[in-house]
Amino acid sequence: MTAQTPRLLVVGSVAIDWVITPRAERPEAVGGSGTFFSMAASYLAPVQLVGVVGRDFPEQAIADLKHAGVDLDGLEIVDGKTFRWKGRYHDNMNARDTLDTQLGVFADFKPKLPAGYRNAEYLFLANIQPDLQLEVLEQMERPRIVGLDTMNLWIDIAKPSLLKVLARVDALLINEEEAMQLTGEHNLVRAAKAVQKLGPNSVIVKRGEYGALLFHGDDVFSAPALPLDEVADPTGAGDAFAGGFMGWLARSNDPHGEQLRTAMIYGSTLASFCVQGFSYDALFGLDRAKIQARFDQFARLSDFRRADLR
Amino acid sequence: MTAQTPRLLVVGSVAIDWVITPRAERPEAVGGSGTFFSMAASYLAPVQLVGVVGRDFPEQAIADLKHAGVDLDGLEIVDGKTFRWKGRYHDNMNARDTLDTQLGVFADFKPKLPAGYRNAEYLFLANIQPDLQLEVLEQMERPRIVGLDTMNLWIDIAKPSLLKVLARVDALLINEEEAMQLTGEHNLVRAAKAVQKLGPNSVIVKRGEYGALLFHGDDVFSAPALPLDEVADPTGAGDAFAGGFMGWLARSNDPHGEQLRTAMIYGSTLASFCVQGFSYDALFGLDRAKIQARFDQFARLSDFRRADLR
Repeated sequence: MTAQTPRLLVVGSVAIDWVITPRAERPEAVGGSGTFFSMAASYLAPVQLVGVVGRDFPEQAIADLKHAGVDLDGLEIVDGKTFRWKGRYHDNMNARDTLDTQLGVFADFKPKLPAGYRNAEYLFLANIQPDLQLEVLEQMERPRIVGLDTMNLWIDIAKPSLLKVLARVDALLINEEEAMQLTGEHNLVRAAKAVQKLGPNSVIVKRGEYGALLFHGDDVFSAPALPLDEVADPTGAGDAFAGGFMGWLARSNDPHGEQLRTAMIYGSTLASFCVQGFSYDALFGLDRAKIQARFDQFARLSDFRRADLR
Repeated sequence: MTAQTPRLLVVGSVAIDWVITPRAERPEAVGGSGTFFSMAASYLAPVQLVGVVGRDFPEQAIADLKHAGVDLDGLEIVDGKTFRWKGRYHDNMNARDTLDTQLGVFADFKPKLPAGYRNAEYLFLANIQPDLQLEVLEQMERPRIVGLDTMNLWIDIAKPSLLKVLARVDALLINEEEAMQLTGEHNLVRAAKAVQKLGPNSVIVKRGEYGALLFHGDDVFSAPALPLDEVADPTGAGDAFAGGFMGWLARSNDPHGEQLRTAMIYGSTLASFCVQGFSYDALFGLDRAKIQARFDQFARLSDFRRADLR
């Protein structure tokens, strides 16, 4: 990473998950959208993390994030319990049921950006309550690119705030079902076009094991997912995707046209690592050579020889 | 098409469908796996169709197939009713319910190949009862490549016959759920590997609007689907895919390695046309320039600039 790579600020949840899959179970798995995003993006750009945890948050996770080079000046550690989520994945590892959610210290979280954070060039508002996303956005000086993630819960209970922040972002990353829920469109192309009218010029539709689509202006790009014969834990894959995507935009510092496509593949690359372990196990301890080798695997995965019938 | 393009023989159903979608309804829609396959493949290779219809089969459809250049010497027209299927698509146009099936003349069908068919170089056994697929295979001299499609029904009620024919084919085209049903594997990569052990070196997993995967030996290729803002009728998309895929293998007459990837894209291209109309409406009257223009759209859809982190 060169000293010139612009900084990438993320606000999101930092959590302790309890993950149950058909094959294994991991209580006390450090997770949260901010954690997965930071770990993934840390290989591509200098990351600043804004979030909150309680006194129960593992010191090892703090050390790991620091080791990854993540700037934690914006991570508050306060009295109380860390946000906790418990869920169980179905046999096919796609669908999951939430068994328990405890907001803990997240309930009273008021994000406050350290002075050195406000002029970050790239900003990602990971999946948290949209009013908190807005509060962060309003403390920023003039980010070059703003990305946003959200979830069905906020579309249900906080849509006015969500629409307000949406009007001010460049790129929305969203699940297929959420894109349809947000717009009322059953057809994905029409849903994406409807989202663009709400603000973001780039709409990235995440489809899990089916990859992701980028709608950018009138351009469409399809990024495959890497077929894996073993998925340990899908938790955080979407956040790791966002980390790879935003990380590449910051690293290239040319967040337009062709670079958006390349960013989609770095997103897919980081997501493919993420699901190979519980928590951030498989994201931690990567290096750029390993990431590049997998990027090259993606290049081969979708490559084909042009032919001509005419 | 040059005079040297090898012939492509297909055996499959020729049917009259009654299709209901959330927006429209088409009774008396000519369909069937053999029909869609032939129409799609006709742009790429000379097609010979083996099947059976009743006296109620529309003369216009016969004329259309002839106009497309499909050799109908192997299509029997017998007393009785043509095979009929009636179905309704859900709002998202992916899932569908079968409302009625009437085998008609298909119940007593014994495929008998005209003499001039037996030495066709490429053979596709479209989705029909596996014993009929076997009967056709046994009448062939020495096809260079044999492709096969099947469905959940045959996995349920005719698995021994299906396994028998599967052991003798080069390429299986199958839906995602059917691949898992056939092998008992929840993970798609493991399911595909398990299918390869049953015979076919190439396993093509069709995923509808998510595209298709090719497992060929140890190689994996991901073909995107074209995001469309309007899908009229998904019926026959898988058969049109197979027609484009096998059609390109015959046309290139080099059914290996890189050409399999290109064939996947021609399959995707023909499938994308198919869903834009009821019956074979949107497949009929294409030409190679239109097909090539859409192939080029696919090329752009998944193209990205290589980058290097090292």
